Amino acid sequence: MVVLLLSVPLAQAAFSQQLQTDPLASWNEGPAKAALNQFVHATTDQANPNFVPPEERIATFDQDGTLWVEHPIYTQIVYCLDRVPAVVKARPELANVEPFKTVLSGNREAIAKLSIQDLYEILAVTLSGMTVDEFQVEVKKWLASARDQRWHRRYTELVYEPMLELIKLLRANGYRTYIVTGGGQDFVRVYSEQVYGIPPEQVVGTAGGTTFGFDKAGRPILTKDPKLLLNEDMAGKPVGIHLMIGRRPRAAFGNSVGDRQMLEYATIDPGARLGMLVLHDDAKREYAYGPAQGLPDTKVGAFTQALYDEAKRRGWIVVSMQNDWRRIFAFGDGS
Amino acid sequence: MVVLLLSVPLAQAAFSQQLQTDPLASWNEGPAKAALNQFVHATTDQANPNFVPPEERIATFDQDGTLWVEHPIYTQIVYCLDRVPAVVKARPELANVEPFKTVLSGNREAIAKLSIQDLYEILAVTLSGMTVDEFQVEVKKWLASARDQRWHRRYTELVYEPMLELIKLLRANGYRTYIVTGGGQDFVRVYSEQVYGIPPEQVVGTAGGTTFGFDKAGRPILTKDPKLLLNEDMAGKPVGIHLMIGRRPRAAFGNSVGDRQMLEYATIDPGARLGMLVLHDDAKREYAYGPAQGLPDTKVGAFTQALYDEAKRRGWIVVSMQNDWRRIFAFGDGS
Repeated sequence: MVVLLLSVPLAQAAFSQQLQTDPLASWNEGPAKAALNQFVHATTDQANPNFVPPEERIATFDQDGTLWVEHPIYTQIVYCLDRVPAVVKARPELANVEPFKTVLSGNREAIAKLSIQDLYEILAVTLSGMTVDEFQVEVKKWLASARDQRWHRRYTELVYEPMLELIKLLRANGYRTYIVTGGGQDFVRVYSEQVYGIPPEQVVGTAGGTTFGFDKAGRPILTKDPKLLLNEDMAGKPVGIHLMIGRRPRAAFGNSVGDRQMLEYATIDPGARLGMLVLHDDAKREYAYGPAQGLPDTKVGAFTQALYDEAKRRGWIVVSMQNDWRRIFAFGDGS
Repeated sequence: MVVLLLSVPLAQAAFSQQLQTDPLASWNEGPAKAALNQFVHATTDQANPNFVPPEERIATFDQDGTLWVEHPIYTQIVYCLDRVPAVVKARPELANVEPFKTVLSGNREAIAKLSIQDLYEILAVTLSGMTVDEFQVEVKKWLASARDQRWHRRYTELVYEPMLELIKLLRANGYRTYIVTGGGQDFVRVYSEQVYGIPPEQVVGTAGGTTFGFDKAGRPILTKDPKLLLNEDMAGKPVGIHLMIGRRPRAAFGNSVGDRQMLEYATIDPGARLGMLVLHDDAKREYAYGPAQGLPDTKVGAFTQALYDEAKRRGWIVVSMQNDWRRIFAFGDGS
């Protein structure tokens, strides 16, 4: 019994210490932080009329621009471009065929001008033909060596600390946290557990088909097909959520028009529901883009004025990176 | 401290009572039961070389014929046939068109002779066109009123008690239990939590697409499309497992050639892995069918001789319902 007797004051000390630690320490005080805390409190307090039973506590997060940097180019596109030389080595006939020729040239201006159709072709070729296990090994290797151009950091370091805290806070309160991304499901699953604490089965992403078979040693393999099965963008997000989760989220987090339908799906209904959009308005510490509030438009992650207006109308929280986030990255303030 | 002091003997009493209760009480002693217990023990004992870390503990179960009765006709097909009058009421032009005309006639012999193509047509019409919420309401209503022809029980009562015990045992040992079914994902999700304790997000099934939109009141809806997205049978099972779970199961349970690839995927690899097939050899308490061991062949859930031979070769457990199961249903012995 000695251990038990001792454990009581120890537990109390740990608890009061926990109370003193702010789970959203990277957030500045303000309406966004207050709304997040209030939502967690209301939905987990059985005495609150907005209490949500544990099994219904589902929170969905877009990834690019919501959990990590998406500007000036989606990380997975960088991966695919980097893979082109290896693919051409295996299939030399592609060396003189566009768009592979342009990618191999290394001419950044020309690469930046590739069309969406060109990109799809590059994606199809670099993301299929291998087994899912081989793909996982390749992505892991790339993530370990590749560095971004601005901070010279691994891409998995470019995650937003305030969002990691929010994910943890929700999980600590019984929420199951899902990534719902236009990015590749197989790609994101490689690092989601390590980076976000989100296991592969809670990653819903754009996915191609796979084909079941056996390798020469008789071991079962799944080979990645170029055929698109799920496109987890725009209206594809609620569709994917229904397919993969089968429940309507209580909270959804995004940053662009690609997340609009997911937020609508999660929030338009009575009861406690929360929608949140990250506004990239911090050119100094990260980037500033999107026509909302007069920021420059880009082709990546558009936060349009119409989306901004809808957010205001529906009561979605618009998070200003500049004002609401005390700290952006774990490695520093990004400035 | 009084409460704490009292709680120790109470906890000890509860623990020893638990030890005395056999979690697989509906299983007869024998090699099948022993292998199941041994697998659970080996994979959850950290000192055992076959220990499996909790995040990798995934067990997948076929449904029809593995968890509940599939003979003489899949339950979901009964549902679809029962839905035909309501569909024809809404679309009277179908009344004189085959195969709907035959279904409306109520002529059982003629209905039994419908082709697979006819059935697909009936499935497409009765499982699409409504919102996913409407579909859920319809299925719930049907499950509450429909009764099977032999036992005059609700279909959800025709679940195998030994398998329910096994699911619970695995879950109590940190396994996440998934249904991977050729049946409709939306259909099974309606009752999976209540019947099997398996939440909707852990049901992987044949799935059509859905379309996102809004109803007249402005609330978000998903409408079920007739387009097939995932066919969770045969080689579609490992494909669906990768898509929806993203991990390879450690244990897989089935009863027919439709489960072969799932068992291969789960079991062919070093380390502790378990495959199990239910053999329907109990005509008295349930049904006896499948060419394995000279039972009559049927079009439903074929347990072929080739599958039987593969099971023996790969060390999959073949469960004889007659010999291995002390009790089949919760409502009695089925005889």
